[in-house]
Amino acid sequence: MSKVHNFSAGPGILPSEVLKEASESCLNFDNMNLSLLEISHRSKNFEAVIDESRSLVKELFEVGDEYEVLFLGGGASTQFAMVPYNLLTDTGYAAYVNTGVWASKAIKESKIIGNTKVIASSEDTNFNYIPKGYEVPKDADFLHITSNNTIYGTQMKSFPKSDVPVVCDMSSDIFSRKINAKDFSLIYAGAQKNMGPAGSTMIMVKKDILGKTGRKMLSMLDYQVHIKGGTMYNTPPVFPIYVSMLTLRWLKKHGGISWIEKINQQKADLLYNEIDRNSLFIGTTAVEDRSNMNACFLLKDASHEPEFDKLWKSMGIDGIRGHRDVGGYRASMYNALPIESVQVLVDAMKAFETKFA
Amino acid sequence: MSKVHNFSAGPGILPSEVLKEASESCLNFDNMNLSLLEISHRSKNFEAVIDESRSLVKELFEVGDEYEVLFLGGGASTQFAMVPYNLLTDTGYAAYVNTGVWASKAIKESKIIGNTKVIASSEDTNFNYIPKGYEVPKDADFLHITSNNTIYGTQMKSFPKSDVPVVCDMSSDIFSRKINAKDFSLIYAGAQKNMGPAGSTMIMVKKDILGKTGRKMLSMLDYQVHIKGGTMYNTPPVFPIYVSMLTLRWLKKHGGISWIEKINQQKADLLYNEIDRNSLFIGTTAVEDRSNMNACFLLKDASHEPEFDKLWKSMGIDGIRGHRDVGGYRASMYNALPIESVQVLVDAMKAFETKFA
Repeated sequence: MSKVHNFSAGPGILPSEVLKEASESCLNFDNMNLSLLEISHRSKNFEAVIDESRSLVKELFEVGDEYEVLFLGGGASTQFAMVPYNLLTDTGYAAYVNTGVWASKAIKESKIIGNTKVIASSEDTNFNYIPKGYEVPKDADFLHITSNNTIYGTQMKSFPKSDVPVVCDMSSDIFSRKINAKDFSLIYAGAQKNMGPAGSTMIMVKKDILGKTGRKMLSMLDYQVHIKGGTMYNTPPVFPIYVSMLTLRWLKKHGGISWIEKINQQKADLLYNEIDRNSLFIGTTAVEDRSNMNACFLLKDASHEPEFDKLWKSMGIDGIRGHRDVGGYRASMYNALPIESVQVLVDAMKAFETKFA
Repeated sequence: MSKVHNFSAGPGILPSEVLKEASESCLNFDNMNLSLLEISHRSKNFEAVIDESRSLVKELFEVGDEYEVLFLGGGASTQFAMVPYNLLTDTGYAAYVNTGVWASKAIKESKIIGNTKVIASSEDTNFNYIPKGYEVPKDADFLHITSNNTIYGTQMKSFPKSDVPVVCDMSSDIFSRKINAKDFSLIYAGAQKNMGPAGSTMIMVKKDILGKTGRKMLSMLDYQVHIKGGTMYNTPPVFPIYVSMLTLRWLKKHGGISWIEKINQQKADLLYNEIDRNSLFIGTTAVEDRSNMNACFLLKDASHEPEFDKLWKSMGIDGIRGHRDVGGYRASMYNALPIESVQVLVDAMKAFETKFA
């Protein structure tokens, strides 16, 4: 049976060599004659995994020891709470840019914790663009942004620079393109879209922004507790972290972020060029904000959807039905998706045009 | 290479048939021709996993629809916070029994949230027994107990009955013996000791105890949010939940809790009889509170430890060094540990006695 062309929005596609090694680790990890699933997280074999995972993040982001890297359970949704819990003071306020459902959820949690202002939003047009031209207030405790919006297919092409700590949810485009990581004080990402399987969230935080709220904190929500515990304050999600490490190792081995950025650009160009060329389809977002990770598009005549669905399914394509908030189609092109899969989708669109145009 | 005799205290041993199926799911899950690690948690294939996991817990515990089952990330340590966050009122107080390091950590989190009383403790003798004869106050918001204490090797042989909601951390002996689950309003357990791999925590909660504090809650810490979301309010730890389901399925298939309880008793009897018989060893806990999951014991002459360590390692035994708080040895005999492994340990102890007594 041929490999499925996996455009799933998340959990998303992982490199086949990573999946193979993950599978083997369930039976015999690191030649211990034990499964990775049944060894102590305090064993030297797993401590090596934690160390390498944390180092790889810093190496790929080109940052030094002013940053700490954590891999925690609870998903990015837990970070929606932890960020303001750790950074928002009683007298200050948090500044958020609202670019979609996930940003809105982050805003909701921040409001439970303290004073929270939305300084820019694209909610007026169902988040089909990235707000620009706003000023980052100089007196905010932090600024929170979302780099890529999976549901709507928008992506920030540049980031606000500010003296205020900039916090970014990069769940759906982490390690997909070159960024200047030092412009951010905190980056977090649920692993399951571009870095590994579900169950682990990566947080890279600049230590000097922590410990300023005076809040008495629950241990599991306190970044400093996790830093002190070497990201093993409690038993970590062992297997999800291991597979994230394998994925980061794969990325580094093949040439790192500059390598994958080029491929991701080629994949995005291939698909968006077809969306624009093909008389039957239309993109859903502002052209300048199009995401290189998630391309959202519609059939101009929605009544053709059942026919198109039949066609792409017959070609081995999976996971391109759009999110219910946008409809139509969404092709997620995460790091591990081969350009061949995008070509198959483009072929399907061309074949469909020949038949129906 | 022969199988290792895995006495790891946690993450602990899992059934080999579960590990084999877990390994296969990383390559091709449910004949989807996709890895379990790269499919949507909203796919019908994974929704079936969630449904079966939740049903199996209720079936094994023999409870009805007055209970809800969740599988969340963040470990049991997150439950230390969530329990009082969801149950402790501004005017009431929480009652805790302190039986070790984990209970102490739970107490610490509760104190951050509100009024918290320790109604019984065995801290005076480094937790080597289970407090008894205490009265559960009738006006507490809830009572929190820990059924088994991995570090010290103690286990509650009976549970307090009370009109106050009884909350129990069963992380290290869940599904190891018959209990009357209906005597508890909330049971939680990190999967990685007796139910699955690290990364997922099971919570079974009686719905009618929730929603009484009036506290405005962070979404990820709110049981009702997770119940409403069908334990998928956010992306769940897919793989850890799947492997827990496989382990519960294995338990049910072989005869359920009454089957495993008998085997666990045989294993514990075999080892404790040898500890008591052998002139070189001594148990560390009150005899009546000995854990059937974790047997802690010492060499009477600690200077013999290097020799004994050499012997058991040569016999394929792994993971019996005691926790640093107790020293000596700890043999964890979770559900998946075959009695043959215990016999090998007993043989090692006998051989050591022959040599050194």
